[in-house]
Amino acid sequence: MALENLSKDLGRVSTDTMADIVELRLREYFKKKSFKPGDPLPKEMELVAALGVSRNVVREALSRLRMLGMIETRKKRGMLLARPDVLGTFERVLDPLIIDDSTLQDLFELRLVLEMGLADLLFLRKTDKDILQLEKIARDEGHEGEKKFRVKNEIAFHGKLYEMTGNNTLKRFQVMLLPVFGYVTTMEKEEYKIGKVNHVDLVEILKTGTKEDFKAGMYEHLKPHFDSLANK
Amino acid sequence: MALENLSKDLGRVSTDTMADIVELRLREYFKKKSFKPGDPLPKEMELVAALGVSRNVVREALSRLRMLGMIETRKKRGMLLARPDVLGTFERVLDPLIIDDSTLQDLFELRLVLEMGLADLLFLRKTDKDILQLEKIARDEGHEGEKKFRVKNEIAFHGKLYEMTGNNTLKRFQVMLLPVFGYVTTMEKEEYKIGKVNHVDLVEILKTGTKEDFKAGMYEHLKPHFDSLANK
Repeated sequence: MALENLSKDLGRVSTDTMADIVELRLREYFKKKSFKPGDPLPKEMELVAALGVSRNVVREALSRLRMLGMIETRKKRGMLLARPDVLGTFERVLDPLIIDDSTLQDLFELRLVLEMGLADLLFLRKTDKDILQLEKIARDEGHEGEKKFRVKNEIAFHGKLYEMTGNNTLKRFQVMLLPVFGYVTTMEKEEYKIGKVNHVDLVEILKTGTKEDFKAGMYEHLKPHFDSLANK
Repeated sequence: MALENLSKDLGRVSTDTMADIVELRLREYFKKKSFKPGDPLPKEMELVAALGVSRNVVREALSRLRMLGMIETRKKRGMLLARPDVLGTFERVLDPLIIDDSTLQDLFELRLVLEMGLADLLFLRKTDKDILQLEKIARDEGHEGEKKFRVKNEIAFHGKLYEMTGNNTLKRFQVMLLPVFGYVTTMEKEEYKIGKVNHVDLVEILKTGTKEDFKAGMYEHLKPHFDSLANK
């Protein structure tokens, strides 16, 4: 408690590096000035002079923004504000080996939430052609395959469902979550359990059932995962 | 077509910067060597020597990884592999003004998907205390408030629902999506429409209804948004 009070009275000194500070300043500046994609940005040396920091620090900060896809350099036009790829950096850090267990569990559940929530978009946008393709994926699976193949089928089937929502960001997002999902199910050393409703059944519901039937069917399909959450 | 063929025959020259290359090399190296959070990393000068690039390039790449939260520097212990904050950089780029319209639309739909999909976690984890708090939020809203207040209530109510799922990543994620959601609804110049089922009704369902009732209720609550998707 004494240390806590001392720290309160003194005020903690920020441990941000110069690059942290300059990166934040630049992002705030873009917002304040309402920069739009395509707008030219000040030159590196102008930033150096305005911020009063070394050229290396400015370069570091610009390099970070370049990684985020927020700026790009065009020949003869210099630096421009760009359209960032919103999932680009997310992809970079989604490595099950370095994420803490609690976040891994959260991401595992996030995939279940997405899977349960996509029925409305699916029924809004599914086409006969989509359903034929999905049916082919489900029928080709077989039932006795090795675990490796079953995982491959899972990815193909659920990936196609996401594709059928017509939402590209959602589809990319679920592809990114797959390694996490695979990792968590392996960690739990669960058998690869399948719910009462399988892929062929889900296709049948998509063809002849209602949205509510599909939601109920998807829950049954994912039930082993929900059961393992309930038992925690 | 001629240009396309030429480009195919010649092969495009990579426009990656040196920092891009070194960043990728480092991430691959961590994976290959199965680095875990807390593991010490080679020193900056060792990396410079091993990669055969300038110190500035290595610094740029390390600065990026530091921004992602993948590495940190500890006094006396040098650089360590760290646990990245998976949503940290996502937050940095989620600015409606610089994201393209198609991605904004995707993110708008993603929020609807999450909202429709969270019922299962909600019914697994809701407590009486949570429901009392949610009820208070819903009852305090009033019905005649200014738009500003209604938006605030929306955020408080739906934020509490996400909190009740016990999934911190999901909760943070929805907070990040809020500006995008607000921006898209404003862009469409729609009136702030409310479905037949309001917040008070949803609380009532949570108290006395089934999970299926809640899913149906949430759909009715969000129906104006789904209708506007259907009319596109």
